[in-house]
Amino acid sequence: MPLTQYFTGIRTLADKTMDELTPSASVNPKLLHEAMRHSLFAGGKRFRPILAVTACEAVGGKREIVIPFAVAIEMIHTYTLIHDDLPAMDDDDFRRGVPTCHKKYGEAAAILAGDALLTLAFEILADTARFPGVKAETILRVARETAGAVGSTGTVGGQMVDIEMAGKEPDMATLEYIHTHKTGKLIVASIRGGAALAGAEEDQLSALTEYGRSIGLAFQIVDDLLDVEGSREKTGKTPGSDLKNKKLTYPSIMGVEESRKLAVKLTDRAIKSVEMFGESSSRLRDLAEYVIARAF
Amino acid sequence: MPLTQYFTGIRTLADKTMDELTPSASVNPKLLHEAMRHSLFAGGKRFRPILAVTACEAVGGKREIVIPFAVAIEMIHTYTLIHDDLPAMDDDDFRRGVPTCHKKYGEAAAILAGDALLTLAFEILADTARFPGVKAETILRVARETAGAVGSTGTVGGQMVDIEMAGKEPDMATLEYIHTHKTGKLIVASIRGGAALAGAEEDQLSALTEYGRSIGLAFQIVDDLLDVEGSREKTGKTPGSDLKNKKLTYPSIMGVEESRKLAVKLTDRAIKSVEMFGESSSRLRDLAEYVIARAF
Repeated sequence: MPLTQYFTGIRTLADKTMDELTPSASVNPKLLHEAMRHSLFAGGKRFRPILAVTACEAVGGKREIVIPFAVAIEMIHTYTLIHDDLPAMDDDDFRRGVPTCHKKYGEAAAILAGDALLTLAFEILADTARFPGVKAETILRVARETAGAVGSTGTVGGQMVDIEMAGKEPDMATLEYIHTHKTGKLIVASIRGGAALAGAEEDQLSALTEYGRSIGLAFQIVDDLLDVEGSREKTGKTPGSDLKNKKLTYPSIMGVEESRKLAVKLTDRAIKSVEMFGESSSRLRDLAEYVIARAF
Repeated sequence: MPLTQYFTGIRTLADKTMDELTPSASVNPKLLHEAMRHSLFAGGKRFRPILAVTACEAVGGKREIVIPFAVAIEMIHTYTLIHDDLPAMDDDDFRRGVPTCHKKYGEAAAILAGDALLTLAFEILADTARFPGVKAETILRVARETAGAVGSTGTVGGQMVDIEMAGKEPDMATLEYIHTHKTGKLIVASIRGGAALAGAEEDQLSALTEYGRSIGLAFQIVDDLLDVEGSREKTGKTPGSDLKNKKLTYPSIMGVEESRKLAVKLTDRAIKSVEMFGESSSRLRDLAEYVIARAF
């Protein structure tokens, strides 16, 4: 099966399940559910669900058992986008080519829609009935790791430092802190969680952690590069907006060419780290190459 | 042991555990952890931890196993206060007698501190090691019920409707929706969770649900009455602020005397619903009487 078809299959299943697990816009409070759905179904790439399913299948699991987790991860990712876009934070009007949640529904509804999506993610994760054949202990471990990855020393912490640094002189250590925390940890959690629910062994989880760290950082560098060079169609954002907001980026610190080289090196490292999986790592390899291909 | 001493014992243990489970203000990002701690340790009554522990002990459980859950519930409660106080929501400058989180740390930090507290609550709940002797299935059930109680059809939904109704003509059905969702569901979840972790039977959980619904509503009516009549010392808020903000309250719809009568009726109902517990329900009875006593 070609890679794009493999991706589409996961996206379709994740979207269908996400639709089923999110209250309909006809359920009260209607405006809140409409706001949640607006951001959930605004054309996301579903990169994290794809990572979770690919990791699950690489260790021999069936994708059905990991889809609710994949959906929960995408809900968490979406909540971080809604809150990051708020006027008090990055103050963005567009995201994925459509108006941001607060532009369309107001600030109060956007704050609450984000809160509700984060909560719904953990409600889904805590529902054993959705993970047939998976031990309750395993689900709790995945829930704990996921929460740890997105809390004050994870995603939220990364956003806090990003906000504190806006307008200040960039330095490499801070940039790395922001990227590993703001995006890296959730990417690693997506991969580890997908594999853990499929019953992965500890050495497999360690290899996937290394893989996740490498492609997570490569993904972020590519995003930075696209902001410098890309068009609005490709990113859904106004090009050059990072520069305008004086955001720290890899190209702004090490230049475009060096950033590209680093992304390639990280991709190679990711592929190497999952060689132990043999033939079943082919999708993981494809995925790493897909990440880097966006930048060329 | 007198009731106040019983309460103080729970508060002390909950505060100590909360301090241990919250990253220190010397951990990066420092400002974020300082903001989280500012709101967590701003003199809350710890009503929900007291409910959880009292319910746990009423069914014969040891308080140690329920304290991490009680702390998680208080963190969720605190996150809702931080977000509710934001300028885009109720725009409050003081809470529990001290400056609100965004007044002291700025809006971005306050949004993120709330997000991080909600996340930390689920991380604590998912940590089996913190609940020795409790089955993983039970922890997952409690986590699922808690998330359900505070999501888009619970606390967050109640706040959404509260915001939508500000400045509009009050009606009783909407007021009831707001109160049962915004405060009632988390109070019920505190009681049910505390008992479930202690191994309560289904009929005990049903009785406690009825108890929780009644004292939850009584608690809210008393709060409304205190806003009309109370002093700043007693509530930590500016008296009359609900009236000023044109918020729906029980006294504004049914008058002070009728509101008081309803609160008394609800307290009686709460006490009646836990008669089946016999002698071990005495603390539950005390607690219900304590709630109502604040209004007289």
